[in-house]
Amino acid sequence: MTDTFKRLEGAERDSRRPLGEILDAIRFNDDGLIPAIAQQHDSGEVLMMAWMNRESLEETLATSQVCYWSRSRGKLWRKGESSGQQQRLKSAALDCDGDTLLLQVEQTGPACHTGRRSCFYVVLEGEQARIASAPLIDPAALYGQS
Amino acid sequence: MTDTFKRLEGAERDSRRPLGEILDAIRFNDDGLIPAIAQQHDSGEVLMMAWMNRESLEETLATSQVCYWSRSRGKLWRKGESSGQQQRLKSAALDCDGDTLLLQVEQTGPACHTGRRSCFYVVLEGEQARIASAPLIDPAALYGQS
Repeated sequence: MTDTFKRLEGAERDSRRPLGEILDAIRFNDDGLIPAIAQQHDSGEVLMMAWMNRESLEETLATSQVCYWSRSRGKLWRKGESSGQQQRLKSAALDCDGDTLLLQVEQTGPACHTGRRSCFYVVLEGEQARIASAPLIDPAALYGQS
Repeated sequence: MTDTFKRLEGAERDSRRPLGEILDAIRFNDDGLIPAIAQQHDSGEVLMMAWMNRESLEETLATSQVCYWSRSRGKLWRKGESSGQQQRLKSAALDCDGDTLLLQVEQTGPACHTGRRSCFYVVLEGEQARIASAPLIDPAALYGQS
């Protein structure tokens, strides 16, 4: 853990630090990335987890439109740029050791590329895995293939 | 993405697969780990994110007591073993590409080692970061140092 986050452990509620100091202290992994959990701000549903680099985080904070880093494409991924299913940022928080982000978002339509609201639909139950939800939208329609 | 998760994208709601097939298809990272998000099952609060290897996931599913893999200590981390702040598993789900877990849990007391309920207390607001919550319990008391 960096000294910055260690010092924050004992900080009073509602005390503040400059944003730049905190961004500089984030513990990005060896690829320069941090996991970001997206949660629908009012329902509390966890929608997805993706990755951010510093550039995508700064863009997200500046624009309030969530931008991830696509590991498969190796470039910035402005959520919804091809599907239209954007995420508007309501708030963002780092965890105690500065290596995970939690985003409160307003999700337009499904968050998942399969057309489901949430990506977490493979439920592990006893000796089986169960598909817990159906697509809201045909993914072919989301990505303009129909 | 593995073929297994690709095939599940089109699966009907409530269709089922054997658990072992799904566990074998999980996309653990190069260190054999998968991120696991813990959410309080009734309030929806996201409490923390930690890592699991296959052994800790199987133990968690078998016992319904959440067990992570501690990267800093290099061993199984039965949540609450030193602090008493256990997590009882209510349900577990994988995401669409099989590389992240979402755990619904019943958290005893604070989830965070600082004594706060949730680890996500460093809120990024405008040009500042704000400490959004105070400890429920002195961490020295949690870990028997007082």
